[in-house]
Amino acid sequence: MTAEADPDFPPVETIDGTLDEDNRLKADFVDQVLDAVEAGNREEAYRLAQPLHAADIADLFELTPREDRAALAIALGDLLSADVLAEINDWVRDDIVDALPAAQIADLAEQMETDDAVAMIEDMEEDEQQAVLAELDPEDRAVIEDALSYPEESAGRIMQRELVAVPEHITVGQLIDYLRENQDLTTEFWEIFVVDPAHRPIGTCQLSWIMRTPRNISISDVMKREQTLIPVDMDQEEVALRFQKYALISAAVVDDAGRLVGVITADDVVHIVQEEAGEDILRLSGAGEGDINEPIADSYKARVRWLIANLGTAMVASFIIAQFGAAIETMVALAILMPIVASIGGNAGTQTLAVTVRALATNQLTQSNTVRSIWREVRVAVLIGATVAVIAGLGAGLVFTNWTLGGVIAAAILFNILIAGLSGVAIPVFLDRLDQDPAVSSSIFVTMITDSMGFLIFLGLAVFAGLAG
Amino acid sequence: MTAEADPDFPPVETIDGTLDEDNRLKADFVDQVLDAVEAGNREEAYRLAQPLHAADIADLFELTPREDRAALAIALGDLLSADVLAEINDWVRDDIVDALPAAQIADLAEQMETDDAVAMIEDMEEDEQQAVLAELDPEDRAVIEDALSYPEESAGRIMQRELVAVPEHITVGQLIDYLRENQDLTTEFWEIFVVDPAHRPIGTCQLSWIMRTPRNISISDVMKREQTLIPVDMDQEEVALRFQKYALISAAVVDDAGRLVGVITADDVVHIVQEEAGEDILRLSGAGEGDINEPIADSYKARVRWLIANLGTAMVASFIIAQFGAAIETMVALAILMPIVASIGGNAGTQTLAVTVRALATNQLTQSNTVRSIWREVRVAVLIGATVAVIAGLGAGLVFTNWTLGGVIAAAILFNILIAGLSGVAIPVFLDRLDQDPAVSSSIFVTMITDSMGFLIFLGLAVFAGLAG
Repeated sequence: MTAEADPDFPPVETIDGTLDEDNRLKADFVDQVLDAVEAGNREEAYRLAQPLHAADIADLFELTPREDRAALAIALGDLLSADVLAEINDWVRDDIVDALPAAQIADLAEQMETDDAVAMIEDMEEDEQQAVLAELDPEDRAVIEDALSYPEESAGRIMQRELVAVPEHITVGQLIDYLRENQDLTTEFWEIFVVDPAHRPIGTCQLSWIMRTPRNISISDVMKREQTLIPVDMDQEEVALRFQKYALISAAVVDDAGRLVGVITADDVVHIVQEEAGEDILRLSGAGEGDINEPIADSYKARVRWLIANLGTAMVASFIIAQFGAAIETMVALAILMPIVASIGGNAGTQTLAVTVRALATNQLTQSNTVRSIWREVRVAVLIGATVAVIAGLGAGLVFTNWTLGGVIAAAILFNILIAGLSGVAIPVFLDRLDQDPAVSSSIFVTMITDSMGFLIFLGLAVFAGLAG
Repeated sequence: MTAEADPDFPPVETIDGTLDEDNRLKADFVDQVLDAVEAGNREEAYRLAQPLHAADIADLFELTPREDRAALAIALGDLLSADVLAEINDWVRDDIVDALPAAQIADLAEQMETDDAVAMIEDMEEDEQQAVLAELDPEDRAVIEDALSYPEESAGRIMQRELVAVPEHITVGQLIDYLRENQDLTTEFWEIFVVDPAHRPIGTCQLSWIMRTPRNISISDVMKREQTLIPVDMDQEEVALRFQKYALISAAVVDDAGRLVGVITADDVVHIVQEEAGEDILRLSGAGEGDINEPIADSYKARVRWLIANLGTAMVASFIIAQFGAAIETMVALAILMPIVASIGGNAGTQTLAVTVRALATNQLTQSNTVRSIWREVRVAVLIGATVAVIAGLGAGLVFTNWTLGGVIAAAILFNILIAGLSGVAIPVFLDRLDQDPAVSSSIFVTMITDSMGFLIFLGLAVFAGLAG
């Protein structure tokens, strides 16, 4: 049988009947496991989950209802490994960790890489955290306490301490011998860091360069001196941008004195980019930072705060409408049409806002092109505004057989889209200059402006045109 | 001088006065270069840009106004390298590529890794593409034509062909000798793939494992047999999810017959995740896929389509208001308050929508937890709805000294937030089941529902409560 004639060769490793075509656990399989857990049949649950990859066991916990997770954890026993906990959603891990004794968490933490252990321990309550730290052996405790001393979401929290650093005078042969002889060195590394006597990095060697070089060549002739160093207190979002900009696979982390203290690898950065880009959508929509696993009380708090702020801006808009009460009484068509002007303006503003927030987050929009970008959005807004205004004006004129009304709504829509475009780019840029996160509060301001101005311009023009009151 | 006493040690490589603290090119520096270009002083522009990293030269082009990019390209000459073009924004690259002769593009393509060359060539017009392909040497042309035969945004487009594959019977020593002796092998690789005689991958070795192993050990004793294989036609979004789920640094790409054809590395995946997550924000906001470098005509087309759809949904809402014209004439307070109900509903819907779209995009929301997620959103909506309803009801009751009106607006807000929560999760889930991208069209539907239902419930209840008309 040749390779070409083998249609059954599985292109992706799959466990029969467990994963669907998108590599997600099948609902049937999850139900099977949960039925076994519910029936008290731990052996069956264990048997089913045993062939799974750690990342899929993590998914299994995420797909299990909150109240059944403790029972699943008990049934799976040692399958709930350090690798599983490293892959699991933060909220779900909190649930599981809460149910485990401190000694068991400490055991798991000792098997994890530093960054994963820190991610697990940093979210725990202060007293539980202390209990776990007390159970760790002194060396691991020191490493984790050191990591916890850096700000949340900084390079110091996400870096691994396990790395290989060598002085520059050794040869390729000496390096390989050193790696073979020292069995307590880490086995997972992608680059060798070359350091000076003060432990400051002076170059990096990809392993592939070393493997292609004869034994007698000096490391200093193989290494690349130009490298991207990550300060230990750098925010993870900034770290991700560096990795993206310079297409890095791993990078050295240095302390204030420039000494090598850790390494960050691209697989961790993939997680961070996913997380940070997701946060931008959620913040822009006022949904806090929550995912579907967030406790309801937290979701409630984050979202209700936003909607109350929104109630405030809607009241400003209502106040403006109230000034035109007499006009509306005279001509009820104004009340019928006014939400169109506000709605179109709001949506146009959101479009510009989304483009601007992304450009700021990816460092594409800087001082050099701010004026140009604003001007660009204004030109787009004029084109869009003119198109939508003509359609809406013709529509309103025909339906109400009143061409003055058609002209008023057309003019109001054009102006409001212009205002939306301008504020959609200017407000996030301004907030960014003030070192505020533009994704968090821009849309409240932009919506307030497009709602209020929409009503004001439309109703104001109607009165001015002599349509009513 | 000790390391600790050296406060001037730069923690990140910087070129004096060129980069700001966020690693972006300073506006002053960009102006200096552009002034030199404008003054016809090519040598000065070249001198300024020469110390820059390729990624920063790419940024320089992005920050240059569109009409000046050709002049900058001429001034920088050979500084416009393959690496620069690989790092540059797609739209900006199109501008530059349009200005270069086919032979020069072919030269640059030959220096690039396959995936970067494909990214450059795939966006060109058909006839220019053919011209460039004709200039390539036959081997490179075959590779790029092969890549172009796969669907856009598939693994086949983003993989590199340069990789190291060996049979399983060789030893670590033989592998290292093979790497040292074959100077035409790629120098950039992170894993060795072990293949069977039909060139199908049977295992992978991280280079670090090989370097830590004595020469006489067989590769088959070092390699890991369990590996994630990427089918060549898999969508890049799915590829990114695999990398994230299994924390991969690199992965083998296989064709339909299971043969090893390429490799994808985590640095490319970082770009993809950034791009895909960004697309979700932009699509959810109806801004197409555009960034600030997109040509105005393209931005116009993407956005105006959305706003015209939005005009349609706003007209549905207006039609509903029109049914209550008599009520509004009797009680103008209804016109004043009705936008509040619609606005709060729209925002609550957007919150749920953002959470749901992210959960779908990251494979967190599957058939197993759909019902649970809907039920979760309903409970959050009840809590939020009750809170906002009480505040708005008390406010309206006090301002208009009309407690029936207060009760009506409170009930309308509560109902509308419930509807918003339900549709915010149900609509994207439903679209996802139909294999539609939930980020693209969900928000049009959700907004239409929250607007229309907001007006209908509020005005309907007002009439029912005998307030008006």
